[in-house]
Amino acid sequence: MSDVKVKPGILSGFMELLPGKQKIFDNMQATLREVFSSYGFYGLDTPVLERTEILLAKGGGETEKQVYRFDRGDTDITMRYDLTVPLARYVAEHYSDLSFPFKRYQIGKVYRGERSQKGRFREFYQCDIDIIGDGKLSVLNEAECPAVMAEALTALGIPDFKIRINNRKLLNGLFEIYGVQDKKTEILRAVDKIEKIGREKVIEELKENGLAEENAADILDTVTFGKSSAETEEMLSSFAGKSALFDEGVSDLKRVMDAMRSLGVKEENFGYDLSIARGLDYYTGSVYETQFTPDPSIGSICSGGRYDDLAGYFTDRPLPGVGMSIGLTRLFYILNEKEYFKDEAGSAAEVLFIPMTDDMDKALSFSAQLRSAGVRVQTYYEDKKFKKKMDYANKLGIPFVALLGEDEIKEGKISLKDMRSGEQAMLDIKEAAARIKA
Amino acid sequence: MSDVKVKPGILSGFMELLPGKQKIFDNMQATLREVFSSYGFYGLDTPVLERTEILLAKGGGETEKQVYRFDRGDTDITMRYDLTVPLARYVAEHYSDLSFPFKRYQIGKVYRGERSQKGRFREFYQCDIDIIGDGKLSVLNEAECPAVMAEALTALGIPDFKIRINNRKLLNGLFEIYGVQDKKTEILRAVDKIEKIGREKVIEELKENGLAEENAADILDTVTFGKSSAETEEMLSSFAGKSALFDEGVSDLKRVMDAMRSLGVKEENFGYDLSIARGLDYYTGSVYETQFTPDPSIGSICSGGRYDDLAGYFTDRPLPGVGMSIGLTRLFYILNEKEYFKDEAGSAAEVLFIPMTDDMDKALSFSAQLRSAGVRVQTYYEDKKFKKKMDYANKLGIPFVALLGEDEIKEGKISLKDMRSGEQAMLDIKEAAARIKA
Repeated sequence: MSDVKVKPGILSGFMELLPGKQKIFDNMQATLREVFSSYGFYGLDTPVLERTEILLAKGGGETEKQVYRFDRGDTDITMRYDLTVPLARYVAEHYSDLSFPFKRYQIGKVYRGERSQKGRFREFYQCDIDIIGDGKLSVLNEAECPAVMAEALTALGIPDFKIRINNRKLLNGLFEIYGVQDKKTEILRAVDKIEKIGREKVIEELKENGLAEENAADILDTVTFGKSSAETEEMLSSFAGKSALFDEGVSDLKRVMDAMRSLGVKEENFGYDLSIARGLDYYTGSVYETQFTPDPSIGSICSGGRYDDLAGYFTDRPLPGVGMSIGLTRLFYILNEKEYFKDEAGSAAEVLFIPMTDDMDKALSFSAQLRSAGVRVQTYYEDKKFKKKMDYANKLGIPFVALLGEDEIKEGKISLKDMRSGEQAMLDIKEAAARIKA
Repeated sequence: MSDVKVKPGILSGFMELLPGKQKIFDNMQATLREVFSSYGFYGLDTPVLERTEILLAKGGGETEKQVYRFDRGDTDITMRYDLTVPLARYVAEHYSDLSFPFKRYQIGKVYRGERSQKGRFREFYQCDIDIIGDGKLSVLNEAECPAVMAEALTALGIPDFKIRINNRKLLNGLFEIYGVQDKKTEILRAVDKIEKIGREKVIEELKENGLAEENAADILDTVTFGKSSAETEEMLSSFAGKSALFDEGVSDLKRVMDAMRSLGVKEENFGYDLSIARGLDYYTGSVYETQFTPDPSIGSICSGGRYDDLAGYFTDRPLPGVGMSIGLTRLFYILNEKEYFKDEAGSAAEVLFIPMTDDMDKALSFSAQLRSAGVRVQTYYEDKKFKKKMDYANKLGIPFVALLGEDEIKEGKISLKDMRSGEQAMLDIKEAAARIKA
C-alpha cells in the first residue's frame, strides 16, 4: 500500500460516535420510531439531494448562505437543510396517492454549513412529525403532536421537560385589541428578545416602533404572564368579546390543553407560554417550544406549530398541517455532555461465547442455539489467552460470558458467568437464555 | 404564497417511496439491524461528507469520475460512495478506542453519479458487515459473515438464494501450479467474463495473454467446475501437494463450509464456486457472491470477502478483516418489481379509532388506553361522514377499526371491527388489544 499516509479524521462540525455511544444514539432513534408509529405516523425517507429550485423555492435569507450547493452537469443541486421543504414537495408531488390526514415522521440527516462551534453541527439528525390535512384539519391534531412528543421525550429517558404552548390567533387577536395589528412583525421580533435584553429594553424597542408606552407595557405583560394555567386562563378571559380572532385563539388553546390531558400528558410536562411566536409568517395556530427544565439555557429541544399552507410553492391546494421537530444530534450531544447515559446500554452482544476446547464446531452450534433462543451472542474465535478474552468482554461491557469446555460439552450445557456479580453456573441453553434475558 | 409554482419532483436516479412501501423498506432495515446485532455487530454511522483526500485516497478509476465532489471554502469535499473507505478511516482514526476483533454493521446512503438507468440509483442504501482484527483474524470469521448474511436474507423473506464461495489462496495457488502466477490479473479478468462471452472466447483471451491452450482449458475447467460440493472437494484433492498456497486455500475453504454448517446455514443456501474472484488485489482469502436463484440475471445481491489490509492508506497497522455487503435499494427495487411484497405489511396503524359521539375527550382517553396496551392506534379527529372514515381505513390498509359510540362509552368498551372478515364485537380495551395482536 501507499507509504505516504493520509491522516484519518472527519470534517469539523460533523459528529461521529464510538460504538457504545452509537448504540445509545441508535436506541434513541428506534424508541422514537416506535412511539411515532404507535400513533399511526408513517416513516418517510426523502433524498438528501434535491434540485436547488425545490429546496430554495422560498429563497433568500440565512438558509441560502448556509446550504451545501453544487452543480452537476446542468443541474443545480442542494443538500437538504431541513425535512419540511422535502415534505412539502413530497405531499404536493404524491398528493393523489396519499390519504389525508397524512401522518408522517422522518428521522434523517440535514446539512447546514454554518460557522462551526461547540454543540452546533453541520450534519445533524432532525426528527420531525407532521399531520397534513386536505383543505381542513381538526384542532385536535394540535393536541396530538405535543402529546406524541411528550411520550417520545419520556420514552427517551428525559422526564424533565415542559412543552410551552401558545396560539398565533391569540397573539394576532391581542394586537387587534390594541389596534397595533400592522406592527405585528415588529412586536413579535421585539418580544422574542425578552430573555436576552429584558423588559425595559423591549418596551423601548416597541415604543421606537410607534407603540404607546402603556400599550407596549400591557402587551408585553400579557404575553409574558408567568402564572399557573388557571390564572392564565382567568387573565385571558378578561379580554373576552373584544376580538373574535383572540377568542378563537383562546378557545383553541384551551381545547389543545384539555385534549392533551385526555391523551395522558402529565401536567408538569406542558403549559401556557404566551410569549412564544416561532417566526413571523408560517404558523397560524398552536405554536410550541420545549424547555429542558434542568437547563433552560440550551434553548428549545422540540418545537413546531400549526400552519395553513404547507406547500404553496409547489401547488395551489390548501394543505394545512401541524408539526414538531427535535434536533436529535444536538439533543444527544447535550445529554452526553451532561452524562445522562449509562454505558451498559452500549454493548452490542449480551453474551460473549468463549470456546475452551479445540472443538470449534461444537462452539459454533451451541452459540447458534443460544442465538436462536433470542440472545445476542458474539462468539470469540481468536487464539488468545483466556485472560485476554475476559478482558475483551469487560472492555465492551458485555454483561455475560458463556464458557464451553469439555465438561460442558459432555453435559450439553454451558457455564454462564455474570460479569457484574461474578456468579457462575452450568446451565442448558434454555436456562442460560432465560438468565441472560432476566 | 408565490403564484408561480415550482413543479415538484426529485432528481433522476433517486428513489422515493410511497408510505406503505416505505414501511416495508424500513422493516427490512430493522430486520437487518436485529440479525446483525444478534451476532454482536455494532451499528456505526459515519458522516455522508468527508474530505476528498480521505475518500479518494486510493485515487483514480471509475469511482473518481462518479463521485459527487465540491469545494466549500478551502475544503475539497466528497459524498461517500461506499461504506468501506469510511470504515477504514474510522478504524485507523479510533484504533486506540476500539477493541478487536471489531465487529460493525452500517446501513447508510451512498452516492454515485453514474449514468442513470432503470434499477440503478445515484443515492442508495448500502448495508455492510465487517469484522476487523488487530494483526490477525481467525478464518472462522470468514464463515460467520456469510452465515450472518444467510440468516439476514432468510429473515427478509428471501429464501431463494445461494452464497457462492471461493478462496483467493486457492486461485493463486492454482496459477502457481500451472506456472502462470505472473498472469494472475489477466486470467481473473478473462474468467470473469465467462457468463457473458462463453468458454471458447475466454480460452481465446487466455491464449492471447500467453497461456498454453491446455493450461488455459484446464484452469478454466477447474474454476468453472459446476458439480456438487463432494465432487468439487474430490476434484480439488487431485491437486493436493502441488502448491502450499493452494492447499491452504482448499483447507480454509473447507473449514469455512464446515463452520457454516455448524452455524446452521442450510445446504441449499451456500456452495463452492471456484470462478469467483471479486476484483484484483483487495481480497486475500474467502470471496463471496450471492445468487438470487429465481433470477440469476440480476447479478450478485450480497458480496464480499477476506482482506489483509483494510486501512493501508491511513495507518501502518496491519488490519485484516472480512466483510459482506448488500445493495439494499437495488435489492428492494428488484423484489418490488417482482411483486414480492404484500401490501398489508405497509400500514402504520393497527387500528383506526373512530369517535362516534361529540365526546372527543372520551375518544382520546380510550385511544390512549389502547395504545398503552401496546397497539398502534390512529385516532380519526376529522369531521367527516362515517363512510369516509371507513374508506380511509380501507385505503391505508389498516386491519381494524375501533368504534366508540354512546353504548360503548356506557359499557366502558369499544366495538372492534375486523376489516378483512367484517366481524364486529364489543370488547374491553384488554380484549381488544389481544384480538388485534392475535
